[in-house]
Amino acid sequence: MSHHDRVRAVVWREDALELLDQRLLPGTMCYRRLTTAAEVAQAIREMVVRGAPAIGVTAAYGVVLAARIRHANDTNRWRASIEEDLALLAAARPTAVNLCWALRRMERVIAERGGEPMERLLAEAQAIHREDIAGNRRMGQLGAGLLGERGAVLTHCNTGSLATGGYGTALGVIRSGYEAGLIERVYADETRPWLQGARLTAWELVQDGIPVTLLADGAAAALMRRGGIRWAIVGADRIAANGDVANKIGTYHLAVAARYHGVRFMVVAPVSTVDIDIPDGTAIPIEQRAAEELLTLGGQTVAAVGADAWNPSFDVTPAALVDALVTERGVVLAPDAEKMARLMASRGEGQ
Amino acid sequence: MSHHDRVRAVVWREDALELLDQRLLPGTMCYRRLTTAAEVAQAIREMVVRGAPAIGVTAAYGVVLAARIRHANDTNRWRASIEEDLALLAAARPTAVNLCWALRRMERVIAERGGEPMERLLAEAQAIHREDIAGNRRMGQLGAGLLGERGAVLTHCNTGSLATGGYGTALGVIRSGYEAGLIERVYADETRPWLQGARLTAWELVQDGIPVTLLADGAAAALMRRGGIRWAIVGADRIAANGDVANKIGTYHLAVAARYHGVRFMVVAPVSTVDIDIPDGTAIPIEQRAAEELLTLGGQTVAAVGADAWNPSFDVTPAALVDALVTERGVVLAPDAEKMARLMASRGEGQ
Repeated sequence: MSHHDRVRAVVWREDALELLDQRLLPGTMCYRRLTTAAEVAQAIREMVVRGAPAIGVTAAYGVVLAARIRHANDTNRWRASIEEDLALLAAARPTAVNLCWALRRMERVIAERGGEPMERLLAEAQAIHREDIAGNRRMGQLGAGLLGERGAVLTHCNTGSLATGGYGTALGVIRSGYEAGLIERVYADETRPWLQGARLTAWELVQDGIPVTLLADGAAAALMRRGGIRWAIVGADRIAANGDVANKIGTYHLAVAARYHGVRFMVVAPVSTVDIDIPDGTAIPIEQRAAEELLTLGGQTVAAVGADAWNPSFDVTPAALVDALVTERGVVLAPDAEKMARLMASRGEGQ
Repeated sequence: MSHHDRVRAVVWREDALELLDQRLLPGTMCYRRLTTAAEVAQAIREMVVRGAPAIGVTAAYGVVLAARIRHANDTNRWRASIEEDLALLAAARPTAVNLCWALRRMERVIAERGGEPMERLLAEAQAIHREDIAGNRRMGQLGAGLLGERGAVLTHCNTGSLATGGYGTALGVIRSGYEAGLIERVYADETRPWLQGARLTAWELVQDGIPVTLLADGAAAALMRRGGIRWAIVGADRIAANGDVANKIGTYHLAVAARYHGVRFMVVAPVSTVDIDIPDGTAIPIEQRAAEELLTLGGQTVAAVGADAWNPSFDVTPAALVDALVTERGVVLAPDAEKMARLMASRGEGQ
């Protein structure tokens, strides 16, 4: 399957936003059609769409929907009234910074005067979407260039077409690496509690014909000890100025095990994921989700009534455990504050 | 609730073996009544009963059931024909060595001449059961004595009344430690894929009024980084002569994270778990279970058709990562081959 045929999580079609409902995958393929910012915020909150880059693209289209309504209601004061929609979208999920980044880009277009604002806003959202895909392809090449000798890799959560504008971050590197003959098999953590690995990553890889083996999250260390895993490759939801990485819960566990076993650890994320205003990982807001995600399974109560649950959606991996950070602007080996500042100041000389 | 009231996983009642069907917990409490060795072997294989010590006790009663039938059929040749039943029971699950240990004890009674063999066999099975509970209580005291300053502990899988003759190994230490005021909260890994932590450990602790918080297995490292966890406490299915420990998949992951964070790691298991004939963990047979345990959830397919799964039921934690091994004969700090040999040669001077 060529990348042009790949399923898209976020689609703009006939003047509305369509999101593939990822909660129903892989059993059911159903697009939800959204026409208001409130619907978009709800879809992000309830994880119809997930994955930091995909959330950013979705929020940008959400601004287009919001502007259309606000502008139709009051062509003079729409720039003030849309603030409410922007705040609603910004608050939908707290950890992924791409959401705020995309909203800031849209706000700049809102602030511009002259011409037709609706056209300009849609063009900006589509540019964000297009640039995300192009960035993914660039990261795919750069990350594949680091893989070295052919072997197996391990990944966590879903970072593919479904988590991005298309193609993927960590899964983009895996796709490029497989195409280049450098990856023989992908091991995918099932990724509790939402099972993005089992439901989404396995599905994407099977569609691409890339051999994929699922494992329980707790089995990753035993797999590394057995040998043959050359890299653990993951995405990111927010990266601090010193290179600390917030990503799906379980990523830090994986990074600790990778270091212990001498398995290299690669983080793949666009520069929009870097939050240079946050000095280190301790300042990254970590979303806590409902205990029910652990206490129930498929609508059935699993755990005893009276049990509590600790359910952070993300954890923080310190930069010291990251061997390579791959962005569309270039690769940062063993990231630290100085190298991160240099990356953010650059214009992507690698491109 | 006093320990006398605690639920029992294995009960001998009215000349038959009753097993609490742990696959249905905590929603449904249903005892299955078994009268043949074949039924017992099937119940072990299909995880009606699980937990290395409970499997040992169950297998002992299975021999009683087998002997009754073989002896009734042919009082002269029953000692030969029961071999088939013993082989069937021994093959039910490969990793827990307590199963073989219990069968060897029963075989010694079978070999004795004179007197009423049925009575002697039942008495031996009941002795195995009674000794297991007494051993658990002793381990509970010894382990609690290591805890030190009051704090939180983390455990994996289920090692309580349900996994043993009663009371528990790691959970026995936790019960004793809580009673002594040394434990303020228990964090329990949910333990994929069977969710013994969510379904069984949380249930036992809620019944005892011990505060319990569940977490996804992959969240354990983030929890340790947050601080406050003083010990990770787990059971064992087989311990090699050098102190390497086979236990539920995910245990090794936990041990690596514990060492990285300076959290101490305690293994609690009766000496019947030690297999002195196996030099180290690499020689312990690791049961591989069906891929479906990961590919499906509650009877529903979760993962894409075409995805493979790696599903070992156990992993091996090297002795070097174990800070304390607690047995009913005494505590071994930082176990190695020499200390293990000394433990096995001792008669339990600590008792």
